Amino acid sequence: MQFSATQIANLLGGKTEGNADAKVTGVAKIEEAVGGSLCFISNPKYEEYLYHTKASVVLVNNSLKLSKNVSCTLIRVPDAYASFASLLQKYNELIANQAPKGIEQPSFIAASAQIGNDVYIGAFCYIADDAVIEDGASIYPNSFVGKGARIGKNAKLFAGVKIYESCKVGQNVIIHAGTVVGCDGFGFAPQPDGSYQKIPQIGNVVIEDDVEIGANCAIDRATMGTTIIRKGAKLDNLIQIAHNVEVGQHTVIAAQSGIAGSTKIGRYCMVGGQAGIIGHIQIADHTNINAQSGVAKSVLEPHTVLNGTPAFDYKSVLKSQAIFRHLPEINNKVKDLEKTVALLTQQIATLTKAATNTNG
Amino acid sequence: MQFSATQIANLLGGKTEGNADAKVTGVAKIEEAVGGSLCFISNPKYEEYLYHTKASVVLVNNSLKLSKNVSCTLIRVPDAYASFASLLQKYNELIANQAPKGIEQPSFIAASAQIGNDVYIGAFCYIADDAVIEDGASIYPNSFVGKGARIGKNAKLFAGVKIYESCKVGQNVIIHAGTVVGCDGFGFAPQPDGSYQKIPQIGNVVIEDDVEIGANCAIDRATMGTTIIRKGAKLDNLIQIAHNVEVGQHTVIAAQSGIAGSTKIGRYCMVGGQAGIIGHIQIADHTNINAQSGVAKSVLEPHTVLNGTPAFDYKSVLKSQAIFRHLPEINNKVKDLEKTVALLTQQIATLTKAATNTNG
Amino acid sequence: MQFSATQIANLLGGKTEGNADAKVTGVAKIEEAVGGSLCFISNPKYEEYLYHTKASVVLVNNSLKLSKNVSCTLIRVPDAYASFASLLQKYNELIANQAPKGIEQPSFIAASAQIGNDVYIGAFCYIADDAVIEDGASIYPNSFVGKGARIGKNAKLFAGVKIYESCKVGQNVIIHAGTVVGCDGFGFAPQPDGSYQKIPQIGNVVIEDDVEIGANCAIDRATMGTTIIRKGAKLDNLIQIAHNVEVGQHTVIAAQSGIAGSTKIGRYCMVGGQAGIIGHIQIADHTNINAQSGVAKSVLEPHTVLNGTPAFDYKSVLKSQAIFRHLPEINNKVKDLEKTVALLTQQIATLTKAATNTNG
Repeated sequence: MQFSATQIANLLGGKTEGNADAKVTGVAKIEEAVGGSLCFISNPKYEEYLYHTKASVVLVNNSLKLSKNVSCTLIRVPDAYASFASLLQKYNELIANQAPKGIEQPSFIAASAQIGNDVYIGAFCYIADDAVIEDGASIYPNSFVGKGARIGKNAKLFAGVKIYESCKVGQNVIIHAGTVVGCDGFGFAPQPDGSYQKIPQIGNVVIEDDVEIGANCAIDRATMGTTIIRKGAKLDNLIQIAHNVEVGQHTVIAAQSGIAGSTKIGRYCMVGGQAGIIGHIQIADHTNINAQSGVAKSVLEPHTVLNGTPAFDYKSVLKSQAIFRHLPEINNKVKDLEKTVALLTQQIATLTKAATNTNG
Repeated sequence: MQFSATQIANLLGGKTEGNADAKVTGVAKIEEAVGGSLCFISNPKYEEYLYHTKASVVLVNNSLKLSKNVSCTLIRVPDAYASFASLLQKYNELIANQAPKGIEQPSFIAASAQIGNDVYIGAFCYIADDAVIEDGASIYPNSFVGKGARIGKNAKLFAGVKIYESCKVGQNVIIHAGTVVGCDGFGFAPQPDGSYQKIPQIGNVVIEDDVEIGANCAIDRATMGTTIIRKGAKLDNLIQIAHNVEVGQHTVIAAQSGIAGSTKIGRYCMVGGQAGIIGHIQIADHTNINAQSGVAKSVLEPHTVLNGTPAFDYKSVLKSQAIFRHLPEINNKVKDLEKTVALLTQQIATLTKAATNTNG
Repeated sequence: MQFSATQIANLLGGKTEGNADAKVTGVAKIEEAVGGSLCFISNPKYEEYLYHTKASVVLVNNSLKLSKNVSCTLIRVPDAYASFASLLQKYNELIANQAPKGIEQPSFIAASAQIGNDVYIGAFCYIADDAVIEDGASIYPNSFVGKGARIGKNAKLFAGVKIYESCKVGQNVIIHAGTVVGCDGFGFAPQPDGSYQKIPQIGNVVIEDDVEIGANCAIDRATMGTTIIRKGAKLDNLIQIAHNVEVGQHTVIAAQSGIAGSTKIGRYCMVGGQAGIIGHIQIADHTNINAQSGVAKSVLEPHTVLNGTPAFDYKSVLKSQAIFRHLPEINNKVKDLEKTVALLTQQIATLTKAATNTNG
């Protein structure tokens, strides 16, 4: 694809400055731009890049005053950031229009599976008995949709996603490559001889509408009942969701975090990367859990911010961590104090004795 | 599938109370039951659910005395929990009987591979030269079994599992989707120019009988020799097992934990989620390692319980962690003490001088 | 394959001692050797194994003096370790010569894809439109190479690797099974109603030459621009690399570590397992980050060694950690000091009063 500065300016209702015929073939950050790049500058601290960039076209705010000459074409708009976001949106729609459609061969689609209209099913996908693929869903190559599983309208499963039997994926859900949904929960009954017997995991996973899940995650099916990822939640890569967990609406979880069994996370929470939350607890709405924290008990108060392992109030943790660095000095101070106090004790004993003699 | 309350009661040797014709189509937790659900109540704290549940049939202990009316059908048995577990077991056997069998097409099976009786090999599976698939093994779609690898009797590999060349998977082993067995150990020899040269990883991985491994794990092949997961061990999702590690019999490891190279973990250990164990150490039998711990040296005493990073005795860690929260107060106390002691020192000097003068 | 002791001795320029016809069928560590094994002893602490081993042939240093009889055949060379490494190298070349070649069926190769000479494309691989597979590249079964992606000369993608659209993989790169390259960065714009809108991730990933990446990693494409893994870097399993990250040349990252968005890691760094680095910071060349550390700010000084969460100077952390274990004692000491000082204060007050009276 190739667009001229004029075409883009028209699209955005902006004005060109410089060569209106400059061509762009892709977008880039101003600091990484090459010939053919379209960039934007919104934050004034990036303005300096404008005078050296190899970008062909740069979106800038109407209010920007140039302090030097520029070699690229400018497009002036009221809000360069908003215009750029709107361009990306259009770009994405364009891409979506170019997205693959149809059923590629070879693929394996069970006779009892129901396949909607306007779907994409890539080569080497396996759609098992009684699975349902709703209208507009895209399933990239090498994916697996188990028996009786359902993939919602316009959902997108990237390459090699595996959805086990009976799991449900909502509308507009995006699941990145390699993620596994519906693997068995980790449930074993200890036996008298120290071995373990598997507890059948006969529940499922439900992923509600508008959820996005990153690559190579693992989301366990419930022992009984349902592991639920609620509407609009966003999960990053390599996340572990154990059996019977519930992740609330519009909660965001960063990469490599893990939620242990039966824990219920509220709505609008934010969980940092590599955090862990133990099982069988509740996390109130709007809780923020910092990266690498370990949450070991329920959070009852909304808007709590947690940090550390075991996690507690964020600001208190920061204070304790700051002092942790000075433990060696504090330890030395305590030792010095002990010596000094021992000496003082002795001196006072002497003084007291002397005073007693004097007064005696 | 659909069963009547009478059928289930007969199966369990129990007695129905209420509508003996009530039909069940699935099992659920009492708090999540819907019409058609079969549930059980064993713990009295769940009894209250019994009076509101939409479940069709509930297993209860013979000893239960109702305090209100119930609308569901009851099945009374001596031990509701045991009966339910036995039902799940039967359910699982039923499912196993319904499990897919045969070799689906298209699949890729090398001419020199040996395929046992009664196996399942899903579409898009790749079975390389000299691989052996023993009787009753199930390999779900999109899986890869490398050259000379062996999959034991009745083992089950879910979708997209990859077993590299020469690795051995024992009988009744279950491996969940996306897990990789036998990838190269992380071994590189530093070169004078700061670059690294790959050290060939020519060992393999052996997974003994009755092991279960979760989804999206990575188990490295040995540099030389064998990385071993011993009989009956259970590994959760997203676990890292490095080259030449040995995991002992009936040891249980929770999700996202990692074991570094050449470490030997004993039997009957429990490792919590997101824990890390460094390389080249030994962990005694029956060791418990808490979630998110970092174990940095060998554990020689069986039945040790560890916590923290670096991990040490669990109870001691709890005590230190409790005081960690109060570091700011302790720091202030030490500062106050220093001031007070400085003052006292001065006062004593004054007193001593005065006393000397008095006595002089 | 089978070699005689004589053949190996000739290959290495060594001398046999004992049965020159002894046959070897594989290599092993001396402590795990079985009949047919070839081993080496370099470190004298392993010498004792020599007298009991079942190995058929053992490489030893010319300088080794036997203290007992041995039943295996010895091959004496100037440096047993170097000879063994050179054998492994030859073994690897042999294996490489036996590596699969050609395009297996069924595979899916778009008409517009460019496929070089001497490649391996396994069954069930998907090569999308405009993808380029350079000469000598190997792509194992069930892998996915997206639209316009490029796989460099002699690169090796193991089973089930997924390379998203437009990503570039350099020459001689090795990527282990299940790894995902180019999944969307985790970027969402919060909306007034608390929901999130996806920010299009339109950049790509570039993996430079000679990089090795372990199994089941996730490497996000850039929001704009490029996520870069520089030449010669080595990444272990289950690693998370977020959007717009740069990993410097010859930097080594151990398993389960995660690097958050836009962070730039320098050259020749070492990052331990399960470490986390927050986003938008810089890590200087030759930085060492210990396992499980959490790095929360830029490292400007090369050769810094970091530990802990939040990470700081390694040696200081060790000191603080050592004292952390003694916090309960320190806390008690402070309490005792407070009591003692209170008592002393009282005694001094009494003395001072008495002295005043005496002198008054």
